[in-house]
Amino acid sequence: MKVLWNEQIIDESKVKIDLEDRGYQFGDGIYEVIRIYDGCMYMEKEHLDRFWESAQKIRMTLPFTQVELSQRLHRLANEVGIENGRIYFQVTRGVAKPRLHDFPDSAVVQPVLLADIQPVSRPSVKQNLGIRAGFVEDRRWLHCDIKSISLLGNLLALDEAKQKGFEEAVLLREGFVTEASASNLWMVKDGILYTHPDGQLILPGITKMKIRELTKALGIEVKEVAFTKKELLAADECFKTSSVAEIVPIIEIDKQKIGDGMPGKVTKRILKAYIEAINLFVQAHRNEK
Amino acid sequence: MKVLWNEQIIDESKVKIDLEDRGYQFGDGIYEVIRIYDGCMYMEKEHLDRFWESAQKIRMTLPFTQVELSQRLHRLANEVGIENGRIYFQVTRGVAKPRLHDFPDSAVVQPVLLADIQPVSRPSVKQNLGIRAGFVEDRRWLHCDIKSISLLGNLLALDEAKQKGFEEAVLLREGFVTEASASNLWMVKDGILYTHPDGQLILPGITKMKIRELTKALGIEVKEVAFTKKELLAADECFKTSSVAEIVPIIEIDKQKIGDGMPGKVTKRILKAYIEAINLFVQAHRNEK
Repeated sequence: MKVLWNEQIIDESKVKIDLEDRGYQFGDGIYEVIRIYDGCMYMEKEHLDRFWESAQKIRMTLPFTQVELSQRLHRLANEVGIENGRIYFQVTRGVAKPRLHDFPDSAVVQPVLLADIQPVSRPSVKQNLGIRAGFVEDRRWLHCDIKSISLLGNLLALDEAKQKGFEEAVLLREGFVTEASASNLWMVKDGILYTHPDGQLILPGITKMKIRELTKALGIEVKEVAFTKKELLAADECFKTSSVAEIVPIIEIDKQKIGDGMPGKVTKRILKAYIEAINLFVQAHRNEK
Repeated sequence: MKVLWNEQIIDESKVKIDLEDRGYQFGDGIYEVIRIYDGCMYMEKEHLDRFWESAQKIRMTLPFTQVELSQRLHRLANEVGIENGRIYFQVTRGVAKPRLHDFPDSAVVQPVLLADIQPVSRPSVKQNLGIRAGFVEDRRWLHCDIKSISLLGNLLALDEAKQKGFEEAVLLREGFVTEASASNLWMVKDGILYTHPDGQLILPGITKMKIRELTKALGIEVKEVAFTKKELLAADECFKTSSVAEIVPIIEIDKQKIGDGMPGKVTKRILKAYIEAINLFVQAHRNEK
């Protein structure tokens, strides 16, 4: 499979990551994942904007413009030709020797870009049937708004839930629900949609952003306020959102049913609107061609 | 320079880290740094024990025994022949495709080991004159007892202090001093030594462990209790400890002098005892040969 490595598109097997790449020894980098539908990158601009925000937050100077990065990603997509998938890209702070915690001079050390594309499809079974999650203590850092590759906290949370037989973790910070292990989390109560406000405790989701827009059109009220474990367990519906999984109902947490233990009405309405928006986007893109 | 890569000792330039190494995309790995004095690894067993504890905490099965790893590290040290330096080693969870947050099956995916040796010398100037630090909010995760390569939180804290013109960060979590950006932190007040207790907010330092032993012999009382910013600013002395920097006095924090703004008496006594212990260790090791 071909990948993008800095400016080159080359076979994956020919990429040689340096052992002193700060991504490898410090998790010193950031990433994004964009969903590709029918050959079109969905919400590309929003992902690129967030990528630049992450870079700024970790004080990394990117060695290309947004337009240049976008062109490279599209070159890779054309080359690989996967119609339905996801493009993953990351930038690390580059190769600096010897290993020092200090950020190297960005005029001397160039960040390293990597991107690859994998096929993925809509997780329809999960979307139709929902998944079972478990509560896990949110022990991640207080920069969760940065989409960094220092992800071990997220991995441990997911694994903790999996060890207990659940498919996903619902994270609790001091009694309040923050998000899932790599998705935003939502609940519906009396027709109102609740989710954690943006800030340093969660990632500002691109799908979350889209749902804000869609629910406005659907006339569903959204309140971005933190809610407790107890409030979530008493909710009518619960779901998680991410670019790859889109919208997935959570029907049980810690073996307790949410609502009637089935994907909820509001969740289904939002999922339907989300898929329609994608279809419109794909159609508009086709017409452009 | 030669490095250790799994079981091979090869030239650094020949190591090829896979782009799908979980160390590179998730910071999914652990590490240690051991100081080498006159060709001897100091506190080697303690570092190896902590490495195994880190592995267990991130639920990683190491594909070698402590004896095997030690033998490999010594093989590298003999090959490289640096008499005074540090050996860095890390293990990532290995190469798993496609990229998934889930921990891969350890029977299928083998962890990747890497070790390199660099010359370092005692930071005598800093030890004699002390350094100036600044307070920084501790925004790291709640698994600081794990020596993981997901280090971006530590890097950002250090950089924040450097941006303000200081050499080091003194981290504050909810008003309490935890540690420095990559060292344990200590204060002396009325002849008593204080440092944060072990737990999920700090790394259980190997140098800290040694100081517990030395202060016992010196008759200096040690209290492992959390102290506040205010208490630290009112202290008589302050210093940080790590395997590479050993013991470095902190003479000012946020431009406020600690004590009389000079390395303190107790700090100097402990540093002297620490260096004597190293010299005894080196001598004992030489006699063995």
